[in-house]
Amino acid sequence: MTTRAYGAHAADKPLEAIDIERRPPGAHDIQIDIAYCGVCHSDLHQVRSEWEGTLYPCVPGHEIVGEVTAVGNAVQGFKVGDTVGVGCMVDSCQHCAACDDGLEQYCENGFVPTYNGRVQDPPGHTLGGYSQRIVVDEKFVLRINHPKEQLAAVAPLLCAGITTYSPLRHWGTGPGKKVGIVGIGGLGHMGIKLAHAMGAHVVAFTTSESKREDAHTLGADEVVVTRNAAEMKAHRSSFDFILNTVAASHNLDAYTQLLKRDGTLTLVGVPEHPHPSPNIGALIFQRRAIAGSLIGGIRETQEMLDFCAEKGIVADIEMIRIQDIETAYDRMQKSDVKYRFVIDSATLAG
Amino acid sequence: MTTRAYGAHAADKPLEAIDIERRPPGAHDIQIDIAYCGVCHSDLHQVRSEWEGTLYPCVPGHEIVGEVTAVGNAVQGFKVGDTVGVGCMVDSCQHCAACDDGLEQYCENGFVPTYNGRVQDPPGHTLGGYSQRIVVDEKFVLRINHPKEQLAAVAPLLCAGITTYSPLRHWGTGPGKKVGIVGIGGLGHMGIKLAHAMGAHVVAFTTSESKREDAHTLGADEVVVTRNAAEMKAHRSSFDFILNTVAASHNLDAYTQLLKRDGTLTLVGVPEHPHPSPNIGALIFQRRAIAGSLIGGIRETQEMLDFCAEKGIVADIEMIRIQDIETAYDRMQKSDVKYRFVIDSATLAG
Repeated sequence: MTTRAYGAHAADKPLEAIDIERRPPGAHDIQIDIAYCGVCHSDLHQVRSEWEGTLYPCVPGHEIVGEVTAVGNAVQGFKVGDTVGVGCMVDSCQHCAACDDGLEQYCENGFVPTYNGRVQDPPGHTLGGYSQRIVVDEKFVLRINHPKEQLAAVAPLLCAGITTYSPLRHWGTGPGKKVGIVGIGGLGHMGIKLAHAMGAHVVAFTTSESKREDAHTLGADEVVVTRNAAEMKAHRSSFDFILNTVAASHNLDAYTQLLKRDGTLTLVGVPEHPHPSPNIGALIFQRRAIAGSLIGGIRETQEMLDFCAEKGIVADIEMIRIQDIETAYDRMQKSDVKYRFVIDSATLAG
Repeated sequence: MTTRAYGAHAADKPLEAIDIERRPPGAHDIQIDIAYCGVCHSDLHQVRSEWEGTLYPCVPGHEIVGEVTAVGNAVQGFKVGDTVGVGCMVDSCQHCAACDDGLEQYCENGFVPTYNGRVQDPPGHTLGGYSQRIVVDEKFVLRINHPKEQLAAVAPLLCAGITTYSPLRHWGTGPGKKVGIVGIGGLGHMGIKLAHAMGAHVVAFTTSESKREDAHTLGADEVVVTRNAAEMKAHRSSFDFILNTVAASHNLDAYTQLLKRDGTLTLVGVPEHPHPSPNIGALIFQRRAIAGSLIGGIRETQEMLDFCAEKGIVADIEMIRIQDIETAYDRMQKSDVKYRFVIDSATLAG
């Protein structure tokens, strides 16, 4: 089944229209006509081979929403016409302890990412959501209950949403908790909305004074401009949990010092260059921790989507044509987007 | 009350016999004639001013055991003749959240360390256990139930014991858990004994092949010589918890990679030079954490002493005369001790 997509043939080549093959739906497969696909920093890193091991042609995209247009004959949970989503994973081993626990993102045999994962289907690796259509095992398809008109803004929930939701839940965000969100970008703006909706007292950290008002609008109870030492100091030893969405190398001690006893600073981005080595004394003297978290499992992703539908939460997005993807990447690198680009997949036909 | 002690008048001066003043016991005080005092790395760092802020004269020592020789008139829990201990703390604010939780080591107003803590008593700071006698508020005095003949070997439990016991308990060491202990020194040898007694499967990590047999004798089920890459690799992603007792700067990634999903690597020593910056990817991809832990609260220290008395656990020690303290420091710096020096306080009279 030939499908129009947008991808790159090499690290130094721009993305362009290409034709790819999708497998015909197997017994447990869902065929989805893609309506929108969010644009994640990972897309850019992968397609430009800034991470190791990019397989070409590379078709990025793992914030996928659309409509079911065919189902395999063993599929029970979905039918043609359903509104669905696909996130960062399209398969996992299904028999390790992590998969048994519904935490496929930590699959001990390695989950299959939505793009750049090795599979049997041609061309031997997965091709992502910058395409008109995708075929995915039903276990990795999510149900979307938001109103139809919000669909484009739902797309970023599939990566930015779950990447922030999962650690917020895991580390007990809720009423009576003081939670920090570092960075107000694609991930951070979702973190603020979600932590606020979970009932926490939310403090947003940003390097830029210009985002102060936005952060309040997103749901932050307080906003700290990190250059302001007095503002930072006022929050010392006061946080139950801080979610740090900034991948660029920076001083983590500024945040560990803000944690209460037994508080955790959780990172969700791998820095290109290492962060300065964290101060171990700041951990020891209040039994604090620095941890990491990766997206979320399928069960939790569905929980997050249902939570967002119930609370009326979507991403703040800027819609683009697929033909403008390189410009979008350039702007994304300059943090010049509020707060997530989403591709109108109809423009793939153009 | 003049008391013979051993201390230093400056960072570059050796320890020597000095006379210090102890306060007469107040209503809530316990006066203890010291029988033995363990020798901790902290003693050396503090007395030689390798940490900031050493107050002179400096009398180190915070692994103190002895006999009650007087009690204040409001004291109810102790009587003359009781065998007791004093660890790293002699006071705390008693009214913060940490103190309320019995975690005086994390006192939000700063606990008073057994030496080098600012107090009203002359000379304005606390003087430790390298002395014949000490006077301590009963809240910070521990009861010792070990047989009398083990008393010298009980002393190191007051710091080395609780520093390893507290994190082992906090992170759930017990039957069915695989626990690593990094470093086989004063702290590490206690960590092995305690984790073994708690019922965990214990793996000891050491840089020196020569400690392999000792580690088994101490209670390790397995011993890994860390230079052996194949041995290390065989343990990847398998530990529930790793307690790292090595303060010297080293590569933490070697250990984070050995943790299971949701496992924690806990450090108890502040390195003089920072560790290489840890690999954040190793944290993110299995939701692992790096944490710190500081000694333990008074309630937990009593629990640890009772646990050790019940299980017959003491430290492996080498007894020294106080006059040999500088030699002991030199040997301690070369890890030439199995595994803790303990001062026979009777030699202070010599």
